[in-house]
Order: sequence, then structure tokens, then C-alpha cells
Amino acid sequence: MLKKWHLFTPGPVPVHPKVLLAGAGPIPHHRLPEFSAVISEIRQDLKYLFQTERPVFFFASSGTGAMEAAVANLFSPGETVLVVRGGKFGERWGEIAETYGLNPIYVDVPWGKAVRPKEVEEKLENHPEIRAVLVQAHETSTGVKHPVRELAEITRSRDVLLVVDAISALGVYPLPMDEWGLDVVVAGSQKSLALPPGLSFIALSEKAWSRVESEGLPRYYFDLRREWKAYEKDTTAYTPAVSLLLSLRESLKHIREMGLERLFAHYSLLSEACREGVLALGLKLFAEEPCEALTVIELPDGVDGGKLNRILREKYGVIFAGGQGKLKGRVVRITHMGDQSPLDVVLALSALEIGLSEMGYPVKMGAGVSRALEYIKEKAREVSA
Amino acid sequence: MLKKWHLFTPGPVPVHPKVLLAGAGPIPHHRLPEFSAVISEIRQDLKYLFQTERPVFFFASSGTGAMEAAVANLFSPGETVLVVRGGKFGERWGEIAETYGLNPIYVDVPWGKAVRPKEVEEKLENHPEIRAVLVQAHETSTGVKHPVRELAEITRSRDVLLVVDAISALGVYPLPMDEWGLDVVVAGSQKSLALPPGLSFIALSEKAWSRVESEGLPRYYFDLRREWKAYEKDTTAYTPAVSLLLSLRESLKHIREMGLERLFAHYSLLSEACREGVLALGLKLFAEEPCEALTVIELPDGVDGGKLNRILREKYGVIFAGGQGKLKGRVVRITHMGDQSPLDVVLALSALEIGLSEMGYPVKMGAGVSRALEYIKEKAREVSA
Repeated sequence: MLKKWHLFTPGPVPVHPKVLLAGAGPIPHHRLPEFSAVISEIRQDLKYLFQTERPVFFFASSGTGAMEAAVANLFSPGETVLVVRGGKFGERWGEIAETYGLNPIYVDVPWGKAVRPKEVEEKLENHPEIRAVLVQAHETSTGVKHPVRELAEITRSRDVLLVVDAISALGVYPLPMDEWGLDVVVAGSQKSLALPPGLSFIALSEKAWSRVESEGLPRYYFDLRREWKAYEKDTTAYTPAVSLLLSLRESLKHIREMGLERLFAHYSLLSEACREGVLALGLKLFAEEPCEALTVIELPDGVDGGKLNRILREKYGVIFAGGQGKLKGRVVRITHMGDQSPLDVVLALSALEIGLSEMGYPVKMGAGVSRALEYIKEKAREVSA
Repeated sequence: MLKKWHLFTPGPVPVHPKVLLAGAGPIPHHRLPEFSAVISEIRQDLKYLFQTERPVFFFASSGTGAMEAAVANLFSPGETVLVVRGGKFGERWGEIAETYGLNPIYVDVPWGKAVRPKEVEEKLENHPEIRAVLVQAHETSTGVKHPVRELAEITRSRDVLLVVDAISALGVYPLPMDEWGLDVVVAGSQKSLALPPGLSFIALSEKAWSRVESEGLPRYYFDLRREWKAYEKDTTAYTPAVSLLLSLRESLKHIREMGLERLFAHYSLLSEACREGVLALGLKLFAEEPCEALTVIELPDGVDGGKLNRILREKYGVIFAGGQGKLKGRVVRITHMGDQSPLDVVLALSALEIGLSEMGYPVKMGAGVSRALEYIKEKAREVSA
């Protein structure tokens, strides 16, 4: 069989050739007026994407770099932060906080469950020394969406910041930063923005910015005070990843033309179609509160996720993500982000069916696919009606 | 006049379309065996470029990120380092050291001069608490080459590390890391590697690595211990800049096929031809010990570098770099790195002539160009003989 690659991982995601080629032109110099105009255009469109009037900064780094930037710019040594830990990326917030000598208090959430706002509120009541809540918009390792809006209602009236890792969430579903009162929003390029990896983003509320001015841990490359100074001159503190920024401009232009509402509806359709298909196959969703960025499927006993993914990859060119940490082998993760259509979801489900079947799991071939198709047809009718 | 852009800045540099297009293909997933093979190939070729048997790590970041990685991984708070400061990038070493609470002792060198090894040796004698010497291979703001080999002769017999910012030097002239005993070498993508910006590199000697294990300042994204673990599995700690790595593979392959000797000879020819042309115009070189990466030209009284560069950019599409810091307006910098031929040097000189002439400086039109052409012809004859 001729193999074609089909990428369904939560970053990298499929990138539209137009976006790739935008980054493959001659490299302009980043300190010239012509490029400042590009930066300025990008920054306007990033505000639209973040739904904020505040500046959005970007770094040449993976998303983890921007998470570190949040911690290094907002706190002083020994300060206490509340970390919501219900998967691999919650653990990462904790690791960064510990690395910098902060005192993290954990709200440990069973993997697959969302944090209960009540529990966060109680911790804040009992620990008035807590300076911020560090959370994921959703936990990409489990597919669980955390109730960020409710958390913001708790933090906004207190001297506590809400710091949201939205690396694989921003642009997938609504997270209106200013309206909800999110203090810090962190994002990455290889997710809903549908770019190659290598750029990260961070925006801060006024409340958060006042901390940057007054506090901070050792930082240089990720020093937001330096970026702020450069921001005012439509440039960056250090040489930016010029080619990725040119791709970013193309991607943001596309998002702006399409509009956030339609983008969110698109991801809602893809994820819902996938979930319908998965349930029709008699499989379970791992996440109690599933997000729209990816579908995490609990595998039946006897089906090893690593083996399933290897068969799909080697025989069919289909790349799903596996389970991380304690979920290794127990789940597969199908991502909906990037340059994907509803029929790509059908393709993913067809791969899931054929893979499970090859592993001896009794699949009624076509059951998931046909349910997803029905759902997509229904939705298409609603839209054209 | 139809404008075409001619880029002569010390990063970004002109990138070959083949290299750009290598990064514009479908984005592979970075955790799969296929991509580990790419990483492994890249790492082999990076060892060739760094002339080392030690691992070479890379980050998605600008070169400054790798400079920070060096400081954050090698030292503990309050330790003393010797910083050679003779331009903007020497100042940067100092800023990073101060940011992290180190105690930098400075060897201040007049801008345009190289550090004298004797002076470094004396400082080390008088301050046995110095743990490392932080220096540039050359200072890109002045064009001055520092005597790195001689410095290594001083540090290698002591418990002192030699940390070399070779961001715009690696691959331009010989800096054999293992042979000379350089302890840390830092590099960037948008220089001699002739890639877009967004990747940085760092290699450490065994002597330096033992410090990473035992010491260190707060760091997460730039934590080399995490990268080492990932290195052993042919991967990276965090999502790498996949598209830039695919371009890097192409660039490294080209360097390997060409051979370092020829690459160094190429830069030697370009820089020498440029210097000959500049001197033939009656202008002065700013650097006492000029490097091969760029030519820094001291402007005659009454010629403002900012204005000259603006004329060249706006009328002729030629982009030279200006002076930084205290050299603002006083020099222009013509870079030889990237996808450039000897005749591009002639083009740069012709732009310099026409620009100076437009500013009213008495130029014998063609004097610089013809001298450079003579030099190039002579060299071409030597090679073919």
C-alpha cells in the first residue's frame, strides 16, 4: 500500500501549504520598518485571537518557554501558588514552580476529571498567602476541560492571579481573556494556530502586569520587561523567528477572515462528530468534561495503545498520540486541531476501527464512521437551513 | 527603479531557497522514530561543524537563549566570572551574569580592539575565585576577533571554564572546540548556518558538563540536564522547532559536502575582498583584528551611518547593518555570511560607493569595486592553478 501520512497529534498539527510557503520566502531583516509593520499587524490579530486589549508577546520557544516566562516574571522566591494537577501539564506547572523556589500547593485532581471550583475556593480561603492559581484550560494529556470561567470568578475579586496554560486551547473554544478576567494566557504555535512549532505567546492583564514590574525571579531571554520596551517600538527584545512570524501572519489573517465564532463552531463540530463515532463503537471517552481540541479514548482491556498506534502508523500512515505518564498504553488521543475538515475525523475513525479490528477487538466495521457521518450531515443541514 | 532586496546584515542572512523549502514541507511528528533519525543525523553533522566529539544541544530560541543556558547551567549564585566586554555582546554576557546574581569581573576593552590574553591571565592570577571566562569569538558590534585559542591555553590548565559566544562565528573560521579546549561554544541559526532565525546551539566539554551536574541556577526550558536525558533517546525535552530543523538538516548536509576547510576559505575570500575594496576607497576598518564574518567600516566625519543606510535601503534595496550603542551612526557593517558569492561583495561595495557619493563624500567611483575584483580574480587564479 502506498503510504500517506495523516497527522492527528496535539501538536504538531497539519499545516496548510499556504502557511508553510509564507515562511519559505526571502528572510527580511527584523529591525527594519517593513518588518515592524508585519509585527504590528500580527500583534493586532493576536489581540483579536486572545480577545484582549492587552499586548500579546511572543517568543521563539516551545509553549513550555512561555509557561516558564509566566512563573519567572510574576513571582518572587518563596511565594505560594496553587497548582491544579490532573495530568502531565499540571505537573509541569508544579515542576516549574518548584524549580524557581516557589511554594506550590497542589489541588490534585484524578486524571480524567475536571477541578471543582469549590475546592480551589476553599484552598484560597485557607491559604491567604496564595498569590496565583496555575491551571490548564484543558489538560492535553487527559482531554479534560477545566472550568476556567468559574475559576476566574473566584480569583478576580481577590489579590490572586489566574494563570492559564491555553497552549492547546486558544482558538479552539471561547476563552475571552478580558471578559472573563483571565490574568495570564499562554499559547503555542503548533496547535489551533496551525503553524509549525517554535513560537509561544503570553498575554497579561493589568493586574498581572503590576507584578511583573514589582517582582520577579532571574530571567533574561524571557524577561517581559525587555519585551515591553521593544513592544512599544514594534519590535522584539531579541532576534525573532522571522520565518515563523511570516507564517503566523498568514494563519492569523485566515482566522480573522473566518472569525472566531466560526472557528469555534468548526472545532465543536469536529470533536462532537468524533465523540459520537467513538461512543457508537462502544468505546469510552476518558475525559469527564471533554474539550474540543482532542478526543481521548479509553481503550478496552487487552488493547495496548502503543501497539495500536504502531499498527496504524506503520501500515496506514495514521498518527494518533498515545497516553502520557500513567496513561501510557491505556488511551489514544485523536486531535482535531490544524488544517482538518470534518471528513478528516471520519478518516481518523476509520483508522481506529481498522486498527482495533486488527488487534482482535470485535468492531462492527463502519459503526463509528457511519454515526459520525450522520452527525456531520445533520450539522451541515442546520448550517445551510 | 525596480527594487530587489540585498541583505548584508549579521543575522538574518540570505537563505538558499532549497533550505527554505526544506522547512516548508509537511510537518512530521517529533516523537516518532522517523524524526529521531532526522535528529540523529543533525546531531552527527553538528558535531562535525563544532569540531567536537561532545553532544551538541539545540533550542527553539534566539542565540541569546543559548547564552542564558550557558550561565544558568554552569554556575551557582554569587560565583565570580570574568567577562570580556568590548562591545554590545560582551555587555550582554555581563547583563545575563548580573541577572542571575553572579559576580562579574570585567575586562573592559576599547571598542574596536581585541582583548589581550595577558590581561585575562593577570585577572585569573589575582582572582582565584573566578570560575569562568565569558567571551565572544568575535564581537559582532565591532567586527573584532578575540584571541580565543590563546585564552583557551590559559584556561585549560586551570579550574576555569572558557565560555565562547560563537553565535556569528561558528562555521565562519576555525574554532575547533576539542582541539583548542573550548569548554562551551554557543551558536545560532541565522548566521553561518544560513538558516532563518529561531534555533540556538550549545556544546559543552566534559569539564563544563561536570559543573552542570553539580551546580546551577533556576532553569527549566533551558535545563541541559533535561536535554541530556532526551539526547540519549534521540529526541528533545520539549517540542522542537520541527520546520527549522528540517531546514537545518539541509544546511548541514551542504556544509558537510562542501567541507569546513572550503567554507572557511570562502569566508576568508569574501571578507578579504571586502576589506581590500574598503581600503581602496580610502576608508578605515573599525576593527583592529577584523573577523571574517563581517566588515565594520568607520565612516568619515560628516557621514552619518543611519542616513547612509536609509538611502541604500530606500533607493537601492541594499541592507547594511548600522552601529550599535556608542557606535550608532559612526560605522556601517557589511556581512559576508549566508548564501553569498564573491560577486555579492562587489555588489555591496558598489552600493557603498554610490551611497557615500550621494551623501557628498568624494568617492572615486569604482575604486573599491575594481580593487575587490582584482583580488577575487587573483584568488580564482590561485585556486584553479
